[in-house]
Formats: sequence, C-alpha cells, structure tokens
Amino acid sequence: MERYNLVVIGAGSGGLVVAAGGSGLGARVALAEKHPLDYTHDGKLVRAMGGDCLNFGCVPSKALIRAAKAVQHAREVKHFGIKNVPEPGPQDLGAVMDYVRACQSHIAPNDSIERFTGLGVDVFQGAGTLKSAHEVSIGDKTVWGRHIVIATGSRAMIYPIPGLEEAKYVTNETVFQMRKLPESFLVMGGGPIGTEISQSFARLGSKVTVVSSTPHICPKEDDDVAAVLVKKLRAEGITIIDNAKATKVEVKNGKKVVTVEAKAGGTSTVTVDEILVATGRRPNIEGLNLEAVGVKHSAKGIEANEKCQTSVPHIWAIGDVSGPYLFTHWAGYQAGVVIQNALFPVPASCDYDNLPWTTFTEPEIAHVGKSEHELKAKGIPHSVFKAHFNHNDRAICDGEWEDYFCKVSVDAKGLILGATIVHPQAGNLLAELVLAKKHKISLDKIATTIHAYPTLTEITAAVGREYRKTKLSPGLKDKLTKVNKWLRN
Amino acid sequence: MERYNLVVIGAGSGGLVVAAGGSGLGARVALAEKHPLDYTHDGKLVRAMGGDCLNFGCVPSKALIRAAKAVQHAREVKHFGIKNVPEPGPQDLGAVMDYVRACQSHIAPNDSIERFTGLGVDVFQGAGTLKSAHEVSIGDKTVWGRHIVIATGSRAMIYPIPGLEEAKYVTNETVFQMRKLPESFLVMGGGPIGTEISQSFARLGSKVTVVSSTPHICPKEDDDVAAVLVKKLRAEGITIIDNAKATKVEVKNGKKVVTVEAKAGGTSTVTVDEILVATGRRPNIEGLNLEAVGVKHSAKGIEANEKCQTSVPHIWAIGDVSGPYLFTHWAGYQAGVVIQNALFPVPASCDYDNLPWTTFTEPEIAHVGKSEHELKAKGIPHSVFKAHFNHNDRAICDGEWEDYFCKVSVDAKGLILGATIVHPQAGNLLAELVLAKKHKISLDKIATTIHAYPTLTEITAAVGREYRKTKLSPGLKDKLTKVNKWLRN
Repeated sequence: MERYNLVVIGAGSGGLVVAAGGSGLGARVALAEKHPLDYTHDGKLVRAMGGDCLNFGCVPSKALIRAAKAVQHAREVKHFGIKNVPEPGPQDLGAVMDYVRACQSHIAPNDSIERFTGLGVDVFQGAGTLKSAHEVSIGDKTVWGRHIVIATGSRAMIYPIPGLEEAKYVTNETVFQMRKLPESFLVMGGGPIGTEISQSFARLGSKVTVVSSTPHICPKEDDDVAAVLVKKLRAEGITIIDNAKATKVEVKNGKKVVTVEAKAGGTSTVTVDEILVATGRRPNIEGLNLEAVGVKHSAKGIEANEKCQTSVPHIWAIGDVSGPYLFTHWAGYQAGVVIQNALFPVPASCDYDNLPWTTFTEPEIAHVGKSEHELKAKGIPHSVFKAHFNHNDRAICDGEWEDYFCKVSVDAKGLILGATIVHPQAGNLLAELVLAKKHKISLDKIATTIHAYPTLTEITAAVGREYRKTKLSPGLKDKLTKVNKWLRN
Repeated sequence: MERYNLVVIGAGSGGLVVAAGGSGLGARVALAEKHPLDYTHDGKLVRAMGGDCLNFGCVPSKALIRAAKAVQHAREVKHFGIKNVPEPGPQDLGAVMDYVRACQSHIAPNDSIERFTGLGVDVFQGAGTLKSAHEVSIGDKTVWGRHIVIATGSRAMIYPIPGLEEAKYVTNETVFQMRKLPESFLVMGGGPIGTEISQSFARLGSKVTVVSSTPHICPKEDDDVAAVLVKKLRAEGITIIDNAKATKVEVKNGKKVVTVEAKAGGTSTVTVDEILVATGRRPNIEGLNLEAVGVKHSAKGIEANEKCQTSVPHIWAIGDVSGPYLFTHWAGYQAGVVIQNALFPVPASCDYDNLPWTTFTEPEIAHVGKSEHELKAKGIPHSVFKAHFNHNDRAICDGEWEDYFCKVSVDAKGLILGATIVHPQAGNLLAELVLAKKHKISLDKIATTIHAYPTLTEITAAVGREYRKTKLSPGLKDKLTKVNKWLRN
C-alpha cells in the first residue's frame, strides 16, 4: 500500500492548500477529489478541482455580480451627466453565464489535476472513505496516511417544504447553469448567497422576492449595517419578506406558487418562474465512515479543536466540513494551521478573532472581529466610532456615499475589537483595519498615518479622528485656551 | 490691532486644517483668503475657500474622471455578456461639468467661510501681505500674529511658447469651465494632471494628444509601472508623444496648430480645437513681501525645514508653496506638524518617507516610499517582490487584471521600503501597505494576515508569499523531505 505523509480528502479551497503546501515542504501527499470538472482554457481541456469556490460559489457568483454591476451602472450613467445610454432592459442570462464560465475557465488551471500532479501530489479521482484510522479508500485503491485531512466541504441545506421537490428549484450548484432569465425569481434565504444572487438577478432584469427567516437579511451584521443594504436592494426593486418562511410550493400554469408564512402569523403567496434555495449549508460528512474510526461529529459537521484536530489526533478537519466559518479564506488559513501541526513540531492554533469577511452585494459589507451587537451581548467594554462616506470627498465624486459608513469598536487603549464597512468598495477598504487589528495598531495611529487624498481610504483616518476628539476634554481645552491667550500678549 | 496666535495666509487644504485645528485647540486664528468662490448647496449660497483642491484640482478632476469612467464602462459592458447598450458616442461636456459642479457644491460647505467662522476663526477676504515679521495686512486691515503660516499654494507653470498666449489655452483653473467638448485636444504635460484629464476627455469623445517632455508620462513612476498606463491610454485612442515639447502655436482656420519638437530632433504639427497646459506648477509667492521680513525663497517656493519652519522661526510654510510634495494630504499633514510646533512645546518633524500618492487614471497608480529606480540610484540594498492581478481571482471576475500588478521593495528584514500598485483600485488597495510601512509590519506578517477571498486585497498577501518562498532554501527542503520520508515508515 502506498504510504503518504498527508492524505487529503476533498480538493476544495482547504484541501488544495494543504496539498500544495505540504508537497512544497517535502511531504508526500495524496489528494482525493470526488468531482473534478472540465473546463477549457486556451483551447485545452482542464480537469479542475477547486470545490464549491471555483465551481459553485465564490468565483461564479463574483463573475455574475460583476456582469450585473455592468448593466446596473450603465443604467445609472445619467447621474454623471452621461447621455445616450438607453435603459438596457432584461438581459440574456446565457450570455452572462458564458462570461461566468469564462472566468471559471481562467482560474481553473490553478486548481487543476495537471497542476497538482506537477507539484508532486498524487491525485485520486473518487470519494475518499476512512477504512481505518490511517487508511483511506478511494474507489478500489487504498492508501495509508501518517495524517489524514478531511476537507469535504458543504452543500446547500434543503429544508423539507411540501411541494418543493416536485416544483423543482436551483441551488448554488445549479443556478449558474441557468440560461434563461426568469421573469420572476424567489430566493429562499437572506444570507450572503441569497442576497448576492438576488441583487444580481434583479439587476439583470428579474422581479426578485427574498424570503428570509430572520428579522433582517444578513443577520450576522448589525442592524444599522444591514439596513443600508436593505434600503438599496428595495430601491433596486427587490421585495424582501423578513421573519417569514416558505411553507408550500405548488405548480400552477407552469408557474411556481410559493406560500409564505409570516412568523407573526398570516400567509401570502408569491408566484414565480424559478426558486433559489439558499437557506444555509450542511457539511459533507456522509460516506466518510467517521463512526468506524471514532471521529466525532454532529449535524453541524466534524468536531475539531483550535488546532483543527478531530477526536482522532492525526485526523484533521478544515473548511466548511468543520467550520465554524464557511469561507474560502478561512479554509485556506486552516490549511496552513494543519500543515504546521502535521509537519512541524511547534503547534499552531487558529486565530478566530482576525478573520475578515465580505458580503459582495453593492454596497459590499465587510467585517472583521466582533460586531457591536456581539460586544454588547458579551458585555465587553468598548467604544464605537463611526465616519460617514458623505464626508469623504472621493465617495462624493464617485456618487457612492449615501448611507455608507465605517464603524470601528475599540477597547480603552484604542485597539480594534471589531470593524464594519458598508460601501461598494468595503471589502478592499477593510484590509487596512484587519492589518491594524491583527497587529495591534490603534485607531490613534491610523489617524496619524497619511492617507492619500482623495481616496476612499481616508474613511479609516476619519474614524480615527473621531476617536482622537475624545482625548481633548473640556478641561484640557480650557487650559490650552488660557495658555494661548497668554501667548498673544 | 487684533492679536492672534495664528495668522494663516491662504485657505486651501493646508491653511484650512491649520485654522480649524488651531482654533479647536484654543488658539485665536485669523485666516486670509484671496478668492472665496460661490457655490449653491441645498439652495443656499456658500462662499467656499478650499484652494485648488476644491476649486481647480482634486475635486473637479475626480468628478470628471468619474463621469468619464461611467461612459467608458458603458462602452465595455459587452465584455461581461451585457447586451443592448449601444456605443454612447461623444458626450455633452456641459452636462458632465454640471456634475462636476454638483460635487464641488456638495463639498463646499466644509470649506466655507460660514463653517470656519462658526469654528471661531476670523476669516478675512483678501490677499495677505507680510507687513512686518508679526504683522499681516489684508486689504486695509492689519493683524498681529504670534505665528504666521503661509499656505498660498501654487498655480500652473506656463512656459513661454511663441503664439500660445495669442492662441489661448486652458489650465487646471479654467478647464472645468469648458462646456463644449473639443473634437481634438492637445495636452502639454504628462504628469498626473495632464494624464488624468487626457484620459477623461478621450473617454468623453475627444481625440487627445499628449506631449510630454520626459521619456515616459508619469516620470516619477518606475518604467514598468508607467508602461501599463501608457498601453491602456493608447488602447483608448490617446496619442502620446514622449521626449518632446511644443515650440510654437499658430491659429489657422479657427484651429490651433501646435508645432512639436522631438528631443531627438525633427518636428511635427498637431492641429487641435483646444490646448491644456499642465507642464508643472509654480509657487504663489508674489505679493507676500517675503524679502522685507527675510523669509528665504527661490523659484521653487519658500524654503522650510523639516518642521515647516522658514528662515524666520515663527513664520511657517506648508503645502504647495513650499513642497516638496504637492498633494492635498501632504498639506494637511504639514498643517498638523505646524500646529504641534506652533502651539505645543514638543516639536514635530515631517515624515517624508510614508507619504502615499495616487495618479487617478484608470488604472490608478498608487505609490508609497522609495521607487525601485530610486533605491537603485541611491544604492540602498533591497529586494523586490511582485504579484500580478492575473492570478487574483477577484480581479479576474472583475475583468480588471491584464498587466496590473503590485510590487513591494523590502530590506533584509522584510520591512517595506517602497510599494507601487497599478490597478483601477490601486489608491484604495495601497492603504494597507502604507500602514504596514509606517508601523514596520513586514511582508512576512502581511502574508500571514488573513485577507478576505475573493477581494483584490489578496494581492498584498500574494506579494508576501513571494517573499516567504525565499525563506525555503533548497537545503532546508531536502532536510524536510528526508524527515517526511522517515515519518512515512
């Protein structure tokens, strides 16, 4: 039996980073992937791994968002005095999906079997199953691993709703295969996936309704943050039904009639051409044979400690299959933690506190650390400082300022506990605050670092100035006024 | 005679910050402004100061750039699979300038006489002249200042070119008053002002020619950086003539015929409807009566030390009138240095090394610290690490990756000596590197800070990974491979 230092099950964002990193550090690596997909790049067939991120998640959704922005921005050129750009109207979804596919194809070689084979990784096509604590079967082959890394990801959670299966629906796995823009589109779920796709379809010309079970969409974000996005989505014509759930789906005259029940009571129906189910994720743990080797798990996924270690010490779990965060960059980060723990004697632990995330709507919502509601709920002493983009000159010139802001929560020393930006460029702007938070650079120091004028980045310095204002007490100001008076004589 | 702690001459970016900051710290402040301009905000007249930045520089140019982007992006929607957006054609410059004016009006109250009066500043309308070392005359009034701050800015440098005055031309002061798009437009000067306005006019529909005296436009940037912008501008239809200067202008049949002389020899003519002169800046030192009180100066401006102090210790000079950098954020930063030096006993000095700047073309060029050619010329030991946006997944999805990159020069410890990004979002992306440079966070630490996927910010981590690769020597890799082999048995 072939023996490896690392046997990785699942070649998504987490698994690929473990495989490439481990191989680069001299480890012998086996990588099992159930579903490599075919792309064409520069006229050549590419067999891509990459998991949800490349195939059904981040990449296609960002390409779709970009195309939808293009048409929306074309609609809005009048604001800037630009003429002769007529309303583009509903779009050809097939052409947009061709663009999505082209973006995936561009990236595919990076996640390809060819590339990883070239890096010295033994790639096995098939589902990996634990045969024993050190053995993984992939099809009719079995390999031995000093360490085993489970990185099988997650898939859409489909709650049983009467009539849904019969009526059919799309998920993040199938939505990017749609070629015909639905005239009307119902999105179940107000999380990032649901919200991003809702806005994109609305901009392309669908009449979109979002049904969300929480008091507001993007429930992890503070109320004041989510409110900005909600206002924008509604202004773009999206109907949002909060605190509600779909309870029944019927097909009538070729349309899907969805019964929506409000938590407060009362039902209504929404008739649409297509339904997207984005009501959460469930971990891909089936078929791994976890019980047989004693890897603890629950419906939430594989249990792993801060070292990404499961209940079996040489078996590790990273990414969506164990969480707690379901982000490509979290999986990639955990991959680094596992490489360190599996291949080096000095152990590493996950830093859960300096993880940024972005919801890629327009405006984007970008966040790091603890939110204001979380700090309050946990009773952590903090002060919040806020700056609005309606005083940021670049945002004004760009016509992207209304309602948008940056807020930062700090401790008594001015060190960042959490930060959120809501602005079309929020994801890019947040990086400075993530670096500051991680490396303990205070708001005061951010305020005294020069930010180029007129860039949007001045927003963080503006928040810093709000913080600095609190250092000038009325008593101190009185003293300074007296000294200045004396100096004038 | 009224006595002040600070008498500020010139209410541009530097002067306003000194005035507001000084007043906020209990100083009595007089502020002299020669040319307040009228805007209308929310139906009310606003008498705005703000200098070139608000009136003739950053603000109107960024608004113009935004409008020009809008039409260019509308032209490019096909790339994303968007249909039914016909080529918009040449634009109505008047409508675009109305948008520019609206942006200025939005910002004007922040720089208004009303606001500064409300902050407790005594605003005097008129040119300030030094009457003695502590006295400034403004019109028929004279005020006394413990400290005097000269912040009179700069204006366009007009080299004497035969026929130019007769043919007429625009500068940054008058270009934003144009209402009719010139069919053809010649821009003298390949610096940031010339380049930004060239691209904007070309996108709005002018046939633009740039005549630049340097080997490439944006001469302060490295060759590889400027080359990316040059390629893009040429692709958008702009003619760039490097290493050349305009030597004669004649008017024929209502057109301006410009003779262009190549440094290598040979002349050609370019016939255009309008000319923009953007061949540098000269300091506004006339009429200040500097000689009488012994403030040293040259054609380059007022001489000031690292404390912004002139040859007369209680007279300070900030912003364009003394330089060495001609940026709004530099003037604002120097204002803080002067406030500290004039009002507090602990002196402050300018940090010349952590100043970012951005050229707001598309792509933007954003820069901090020493450029690669500067490091080489000065013989400073350094290593350069580079990452290309054609491997940044977000840039790929956005369709904004070709040729764009981020490069960072570091010392032996991985600390940043200089960094440049060339990308449409470069100005925003650079902030993280400015913070890292200023607060001595190494490339290694940037690489291990989590960057949200898929955001453009991952580019800095990608540069960091290039740096980290150099830490894994072939010898070390051999050793790790041996250990891993042993561990498999």
